Amino acid sequence: MYADLTARELKAVRDYLHSIPELELTEARSKTLMKNSILLIELHLPRKHEALRALDRGQAKPQRQARVIIQFGNKTEPNITEYIVSPLPSPKTHTIKTFKGARPIRFESRPISAVEYYHINDILGKIANKAHKLLFETTGGFSFNNCSNRCLTFSDIAPRGLGPGERRSWIMLQKFVEGYFIQPIGFEILINHQDLDPEKWNVEKVWYNSMFFDSVEELVEKYESGDVEKIKLPEHDDNDLYSSYIPRGHSNTATNIHGPKLVEPQGKRYHVDRNFVEYAGWSFAYRVRSSAGLQVFDLRFNGERIAYEISLQEAIAFYSGDTPAAMQTKYIDAGWAMGSSSYELASGIDCPEIATFVDLYHYYDTDKPVRYKNALCIFEMTTAMPLRRHFDSNFKGGYNFFGGVDNAVLVLRTTSTVYNYDYIWDFVFYQNGVVEVKVSATGYIHATFFTANGLHYGAKVYNHVLGNLHTHLIHYKVDLDIAGRENSFETIDLKYVNFTNPWSPKNFIVQSKLHRTEQKTERSAAFRFGKKFPRYVHFYNPNEKNKWGHQKGYRIQLNSHAHSVLPRGWREENGISWSRYPLAVTRHKDSEATSSSMYTQGDPWDPVVSFEDYIRNNEDIVNQDLVAWVTVGFLHVPHSEDIPNTATPGNTVGFFLRPFNFFDEDPSVASRSTVIVRQGKDGKPKVQRWTPEVIGHCVSDKPFMHF
Amino acid sequence: MYADLTARELKAVRDYLHSIPELELTEARSKTLMKNSILLIELHLPRKHEALRALDRGQAKPQRQARVIIQFGNKTEPNITEYIVSPLPSPKTHTIKTFKGARPIRFESRPISAVEYYHINDILGKIANKAHKLLFETTGGFSFNNCSNRCLTFSDIAPRGLGPGERRSWIMLQKFVEGYFIQPIGFEILINHQDLDPEKWNVEKVWYNSMFFDSVEELVEKYESGDVEKIKLPEHDDNDLYSSYIPRGHSNTATNIHGPKLVEPQGKRYHVDRNFVEYAGWSFAYRVRSSAGLQVFDLRFNGERIAYEISLQEAIAFYSGDTPAAMQTKYIDAGWAMGSSSYELASGIDCPEIATFVDLYHYYDTDKPVRYKNALCIFEMTTAMPLRRHFDSNFKGGYNFFGGVDNAVLVLRTTSTVYNYDYIWDFVFYQNGVVEVKVSATGYIHATFFTANGLHYGAKVYNHVLGNLHTHLIHYKVDLDIAGRENSFETIDLKYVNFTNPWSPKNFIVQSKLHRTEQKTERSAAFRFGKKFPRYVHFYNPNEKNKWGHQKGYRIQLNSHAHSVLPRGWREENGISWSRYPLAVTRHKDSEATSSSMYTQGDPWDPVVSFEDYIRNNEDIVNQDLVAWVTVGFLHVPHSEDIPNTATPGNTVGFFLRPFNFFDEDPSVASRSTVIVRQGKDGKPKVQRWTPEVIGHCVSDKPFMHF
Ligand SMILES: [Ca+2]
Ligand SMILES: [Ca+2]
Ligand SMILES: [Ca+2]
Ligand SMILES: [Ca+2]
Ligand SMILES: [Cu+2]
Ligand SMILES: [Cu+2]
Repeated sequence: MYADLTARELKAVRDYLHSIPELELTEARSKTLMKNSILLIELHLPRKHEALRALDRGQAKPQRQARVIIQFGNKTEPNITEYIVSPLPSPKTHTIKTFKGARPIRFESRPISAVEYYHINDILGKIANKAHKLLFETTGGFSFNNCSNRCLTFSDIAPRGLGPGERRSWIMLQKFVEGYFIQPIGFEILINHQDLDPEKWNVEKVWYNSMFFDSVEELVEKYESGDVEKIKLPEHDDNDLYSSYIPRGHSNTATNIHGPKLVEPQGKRYHVDRNFVEYAGWSFAYRVRSSAGLQVFDLRFNGERIAYEISLQEAIAFYSGDTPAAMQTKYIDAGWAMGSSSYELASGIDCPEIATFVDLYHYYDTDKPVRYKNALCIFEMTTAMPLRRHFDSNFKGGYNFFGGVDNAVLVLRTTSTVYNYDYIWDFVFYQNGVVEVKVSATGYIHATFFTANGLHYGAKVYNHVLGNLHTHLIHYKVDLDIAGRENSFETIDLKYVNFTNPWSPKNFIVQSKLHRTEQKTERSAAFRFGKKFPRYVHFYNPNEKNKWGHQKGYRIQLNSHAHSVLPRGWREENGISWSRYPLAVTRHKDSEATSSSMYTQGDPWDPVVSFEDYIRNNEDIVNQDLVAWVTVGFLHVPHSEDIPNTATPGNTVGFFLRPFNFFDEDPSVASRSTVIVRQGKDGKPKVQRWTPEVIGHCVSDKPFMHF
Repeated sequence: MYADLTARELKAVRDYLHSIPELELTEARSKTLMKNSILLIELHLPRKHEALRALDRGQAKPQRQARVIIQFGNKTEPNITEYIVSPLPSPKTHTIKTFKGARPIRFESRPISAVEYYHINDILGKIANKAHKLLFETTGGFSFNNCSNRCLTFSDIAPRGLGPGERRSWIMLQKFVEGYFIQPIGFEILINHQDLDPEKWNVEKVWYNSMFFDSVEELVEKYESGDVEKIKLPEHDDNDLYSSYIPRGHSNTATNIHGPKLVEPQGKRYHVDRNFVEYAGWSFAYRVRSSAGLQVFDLRFNGERIAYEISLQEAIAFYSGDTPAAMQTKYIDAGWAMGSSSYELASGIDCPEIATFVDLYHYYDTDKPVRYKNALCIFEMTTAMPLRRHFDSNFKGGYNFFGGVDNAVLVLRTTSTVYNYDYIWDFVFYQNGVVEVKVSATGYIHATFFTANGLHYGAKVYNHVLGNLHTHLIHYKVDLDIAGRENSFETIDLKYVNFTNPWSPKNFIVQSKLHRTEQKTERSAAFRFGKKFPRYVHFYNPNEKNKWGHQKGYRIQLNSHAHSVLPRGWREENGISWSRYPLAVTRHKDSEATSSSMYTQGDPWDPVVSFEDYIRNNEDIVNQDLVAWVTVGFLHVPHSEDIPNTATPGNTVGFFLRPFNFFDEDPSVASRSTVIVRQGKDGKPKVQRWTPEVIGHCVSDKPFMHF
């Protein structure tokens, strides 16, 4: 039910829609913008109660459906319309899919397409021609046109304007060398590309050496007349490896041989069947949305459901700076189709060599399904850490026993390369019923031309280059279904109690006591950044108890350094109202499937999907189907060590789902990886294992323990 | 200079001191408490400026010295005295080592010894004889004496009293089966064992079934007369694996074969020479104090010092509960010699099979040096994650390049099994100049007898067993020396600025700006729990700049869920005044070497070492030798999944040391593990490597990438 559409299904939907004359669909990749074309086709999820009828009551699976975004550019009033097409694999109907409150999707809020970029490149070519001399002199020989190995390229900034309905983008030019993202040359230009006729596009502003100009002509004239101070970048040095991955410098210890590798001496301990995965008690289905990426469904441990859905919703990076491009940059990545911005994962770097690599298919800004080879990987790894261990001393130089279990985990991973930076999206499944969801950031920083004032907004990382401060925030939907749909939510804090010492009445005891607060409404369960966050946040089933009488529950433990990025309600902040809350809890609604959309980047001021709407009605959340919404992230003040790329250590944030009286004991007791050592009658250690004595020729043959 | 004393050195110190007639030393293990004996011998660190003269100016190394703790029990006024014995390996002198303010060490604050336990066991035997019938009936057949496979054992609680100078311990009885820590039987007893003549020890209180009694006799009498409600535990079931590591239950996927293992197909990439380690630019020395454990010294990257010392100071667990043992439990683990509470590390569980295992020697509560076989391990591992990666799309279905580096790290690890629970102490060295210091908690919870009121303080985890809430706090000393000893410290926060949009003057821009605050005194750099913590905390050398003009610096990034455990100044809280501050910064002083001592557990009310003293004089910290003191930890509300043991996932806290404009670029550019892929003229990928093409027969022979 949750499997992404196959190439065949995607093609069937495309062919079906192209066969409807009224839609007047043409090729997405044809050069005109004044056309009706398909932007995206992907699986449309079944409604939850229908899916559960199939999963839990053995009823028929709901029909497979597709969600389709069509851009109607060839209309008097151009618009974006979403359709549900069904049934698959042989579609017969299409119905309009509306958003909450039947809000229309502004045409200007659509994601940018390859064709639009083609025209942007075109106008940039014309502009660069006019400013050829300036650019050539500034860069010491780089140009936009006819340039062989001294070319310029560009990065475009979003949002594309200052309010709804605008489509005008700041664009900055960069040297087109490996790692061009951090090669700004100090030339930024504001292009209005709202018109569907690219001939009518125009330059609204130019920024060069901290000065603004109303046109390229004005800049060129003032440049020639000496009214503008000229920038002259240092001679370009092809041997300067600054933005490149090529190794340089030396290290005292060998790094020219391979480091440790993972092997599976006795084969895989997990099963992958298409999009269904089983591992050590766990089972789940996954899919990858073209817009926002990885989703896990029907997550169960030993057959018992823990979550109906855990899925990535949005990733943003909001910047500060001293150039117009830097001030304007507020990237909202679902609008860049971050789910389909995934490319082949490198074996041994992106995922271990032993990983299972899986191809994905997306239909986004294309005319046929595109295969993304090895874009997802699944692997088991050891964390090189015990899951549990105890050395039981007898305090007489000997021991009663040693017990331990290796902490092996299953990892489900995709990446998104959203232009300059790369996110690594992980779901980690532990043998003890814990799930970790995390994101690691790497790739190139978004850097702008250095100015002295820029030091308020970042650090100089190279000649003329400022690394701009920004905040990464990531939003997740966590539809926990703890032993059923009816769940409640409480926070647990500690309060000091002070009472007479019962065994020494002239003394007092001060100790901490659990202070549980059932949060009964959506508002009371929406925690703001900057306010105290509860010690524990606990989701439980008020109707189900474990063996010891405790309500079966899971808690969410955040691992994050996130804060708000803009004052509440300030312009673009309205588009990311989810980012107000490290955690919010809502009643589940099929109509509140996601907290963001592909259109938020294009219109964050008045977004078609607004998370705040979900909690505004402040519904009762006692004994209901609850959804937790989690924001994690971190402040990134770039520093020299972000060159050439941001590195992952310390740049991982996420959250744990941890059982809290859900089971009767740690479910990892089922693991046969356990090893117990006891002292035999002869004083020698007796090792008890449930796995083969011999591991395999690739792994050490040293004895397990000596004692 | 930092190597722990060798067995030969330890023995020489012991022999030297035993040869001094005035000390009247006798064997530590002889049964009397009324004797003078050595409690501990360990390395006494050289003073920092002397060590640096040797390290940085090539002068002679300072003489090796020993620190010795002697318990003078055979004196009119029994006392504890510390000595410095030198020079090693042939000692000639011993001088008294005093604490700050020449504070004496209370005799009652000494750690408990094996001999004292021997006598406690003795008196418990006598007590248990008196209560034999009650214990036997309560437990359904368990007894303390003559018991074969139905024995009782005990856990003793600390601190041992309510104020300075006391030595009376709550002790709880437990079934002596595997995992006896979580087998309380509901019998707790307060024994005064202050007198050096065990014959004079006595029972002060007894707790049984939520009632207090002044003597065992009183309890037994009331038990027999029916004035006490009898506890009757369920029949003991030897097949109930509750507290055991033995696997049970089943899992759908195979766990009876070995999971992924680490191999080193081309050998080790690090060097270990005694206590000196080199890896990928890093070098450092380590040692393991018997009291508090792992320390790293002279940490350098590419020869440049980053920290003079990073070391574990203390670990505490403060509990709450409804029984006197639970209310009283405030474990302060240096007082339990957590540094020497380390046992053999299990290959494949505690450390990977490929690890280098190292023996340690301790001289603690012994009469000869004791070898701790394989008590420390060092290994390289892959995190199965890129250190850096970028996929550089050409946005036309192809790519410009892919670059990536595997995130291999070196791990330095010891463990401490402090009675019931096990800490895993890690230092992780990343190739990009980042160090991660962390602790993971596992082992048995400290559990007490269940009462209904106990649910305010934890969860029921078994018949009659309460898992008591507690907080783990860990303290670290981080003597950063960023490019020299003279460092300064600043916090970096963000503030919104609001100004007219320079390219659209009718609009405003709101964005975040760096707000740096140099913290000039110790008080201003001591951040309290419960107060806002700065976004970045930055240590830098005001006199040294990187290539781009930024002061060379490192920042500390905490990964912790810690809070205070008691109101400031409340009784035992005085012993852990370091725990008030997630971060405090002080001027370095040789006399402020540690933030705690082995005596804090014995006298937390008026501790001989008090961290608060270090900041009370509020010294200037600008351009000085600074030391950062870091507290991390987490609240642990036990739950059913802590049975049989707390598992590590989600129970790891620590901090990162991250370069912040220390280098000119990411120093991992020196790593030859880099792989770059570019599209060849034929469209096929061209893979550029600096490591052998073939990894080894144990690792996959699949192609690196397909594209
Ligand atoms: Ca609602
Ligand atoms: Ca739910
Ligand atoms: Ca001071
Ligand atoms: Ca220092
Ligand atoms: Cu970033
Ligand atoms: Cu704990």
